[in-house]
Amino acid sequence: MARRQASPPIQEFALIRTLERRFARRTPGLVQGIGDDAAVIATSSPTWWHLTTDLLAEGIHFDMKSATPESVGYRAAMANLSDIAAMGAVPRYLLISLAIPKTWTRPHIHELYTGLMKACRLYNVTLVGGDTSASKTGLFLSITLVGTTSRGRALFRHGAKVGDHIYVSGTLGDSLAGLTLLMGHTSSGPSRKKKSRLSPTHRAFLLRRHFRPTARVAEGQWLNERQLASAAIDLSDGLSGDLRHLCEASQVGAEVELDKIPISPACRAYAQAIEVSPIQLALTGGEDYELLFTTSPRNCKKVERQARTRGYRTTPIGTIRPQRFGIQMKTDGRTQPLPVTSYEHFR
Amino acid sequence: MARRQASPPIQEFALIRTLERRFARRTPGLVQGIGDDAAVIATSSPTWWHLTTDLLAEGIHFDMKSATPESVGYRAAMANLSDIAAMGAVPRYLLISLAIPKTWTRPHIHELYTGLMKACRLYNVTLVGGDTSASKTGLFLSITLVGTTSRGRALFRHGAKVGDHIYVSGTLGDSLAGLTLLMGHTSSGPSRKKKSRLSPTHRAFLLRRHFRPTARVAEGQWLNERQLASAAIDLSDGLSGDLRHLCEASQVGAEVELDKIPISPACRAYAQAIEVSPIQLALTGGEDYELLFTTSPRNCKKVERQARTRGYRTTPIGTIRPQRFGIQMKTDGRTQPLPVTSYEHFR
Repeated sequence: MARRQASPPIQEFALIRTLERRFARRTPGLVQGIGDDAAVIATSSPTWWHLTTDLLAEGIHFDMKSATPESVGYRAAMANLSDIAAMGAVPRYLLISLAIPKTWTRPHIHELYTGLMKACRLYNVTLVGGDTSASKTGLFLSITLVGTTSRGRALFRHGAKVGDHIYVSGTLGDSLAGLTLLMGHTSSGPSRKKKSRLSPTHRAFLLRRHFRPTARVAEGQWLNERQLASAAIDLSDGLSGDLRHLCEASQVGAEVELDKIPISPACRAYAQAIEVSPIQLALTGGEDYELLFTTSPRNCKKVERQARTRGYRTTPIGTIRPQRFGIQMKTDGRTQPLPVTSYEHFR
Repeated sequence: MARRQASPPIQEFALIRTLERRFARRTPGLVQGIGDDAAVIATSSPTWWHLTTDLLAEGIHFDMKSATPESVGYRAAMANLSDIAAMGAVPRYLLISLAIPKTWTRPHIHELYTGLMKACRLYNVTLVGGDTSASKTGLFLSITLVGTTSRGRALFRHGAKVGDHIYVSGTLGDSLAGLTLLMGHTSSGPSRKKKSRLSPTHRAFLLRRHFRPTARVAEGQWLNERQLASAAIDLSDGLSGDLRHLCEASQVGAEVELDKIPISPACRAYAQAIEVSPIQLALTGGEDYELLFTTSPRNCKKVERQARTRGYRTTPIGTIRPQRFGIQMKTDGRTQPLPVTSYEHFR
């Protein structure tokens, strides 16, 4: 349930947050309303329900000139699966709302569903409902995903404590690298030459990370069941933006060591080829769908040992600080505020 | 979870139904998947969960030249509330996905949320989550609503039996009359004169029925709790289309007595003024959000007596017949097939 900070001015998203907070209310059974990766509802059974919704709009989150209908369906499901992963929940049921442009033919629709269902099958999720409409303009998809955890057991954004270590799963910036690589494809000019320095293996890796991201569902469940994380969020808007969300919810600050951020060899090679900092890609790149989580110092060894055993990549990248510290990044021994940047989805 | 049969050819909606059926699968806890007003999930508690999603697209379901942002928000919530009403469930939690055009300003967004929350407050529904994005083009809203019933107790489309009586709540055709009245407003020409024959009271009634429809949530719960209905569906696509959905799900036919269809005095007056049959408005008019339900003959007296006591308007309009009978309408002693028409939302 990320807020895509695309075209409308950022104040309008702030207005929506204000309105939603004003309209939100406590109600029996509601464990977590607006303000986390999913809403959490307690039932009278030993189960908590997690509900999340994500919208993808043509021209904002994807462009049909470079994306295929299959990748749109797949990534739409993955955005929601990642929210459920960040709650430590088991994804269960999916509903899809779809507004279809006139230019779409039967094969387009078939491909979109194929992509959606590929993602669902990977995580054993069942399609239970939906709504379909024509669209006068572009394609719009909204997916709602329901997940479950045991009662009283979930990862929230708001649990981080001063002194906790900050971890991320996987490597960051790959999806944005894949996207810019792809966009370079359709343009001409000097970037062509630079791209050609990238090996086919690296190129394929980055495109796969963009088109076929992996929600860290198993990792989220592991952290939740073993009670190893004090807070968690998924990286859909980029480390810079999502760390800020976690810190705001937990009312803490953070210090990130930039040279510890895990970067894949492919992303590093691509960044070098186009002469940008790979850290920049990692900080602002959205849709990596990795997990950002915090762990109390006494659990860090356990996290690292268990992750190794299970084959999960987790990297400590910093420490939770008091709120007055703000969100700072440390590089070459110097500390400076982390820039307020947030991923702007394709437009 | 109605299928809006707007711009894309009807075969494409059929394709989606086919795909969804192919991808659907039985899974523990899933009581009802695709094919009813809501999906129904059993938990280990004494509660069934009902999930429904509805999409509204600018230029298809509404036009910002005639609709206000408030009415769009209100009606979007009502479309979902009506689905939950048709399951006999209590509406509980709402999630909203919103793609906002660049032309929208803060007051527009504020109004949309005001309309949405007015509808939610009427039914004690809590906003628990959402997603917001920019839109390169028009406004898109997708709402997901969660409702609950007691375990084992819900109204489905598939329970109608041969011999059951067919009922509708309220009056039909008012919303379409309100919409066409409104659209006439913006045009010039001969329709102007005809409209002027309509009294201000009738005019206000029809516009209110279009902009402020009422989901029959109390009626649905009553029918469900008292086990008075064998099947139910909400009238979002018009009697002609929705009766067909109920008959298909129940594998039965139906005979509708056209002169029994309840028409409001305002709708009758308007139909006369524009020289169309009010029955035509009732059969094809979508978004009335009344309930269509079937009742076994032994329960009919009970339905009518209890409805009177509670102040609910319910009208018997026909009888369930064997599937081979098809769906027929009876008027002036003659019986003929009910035309296959379905409401086309504004475009």
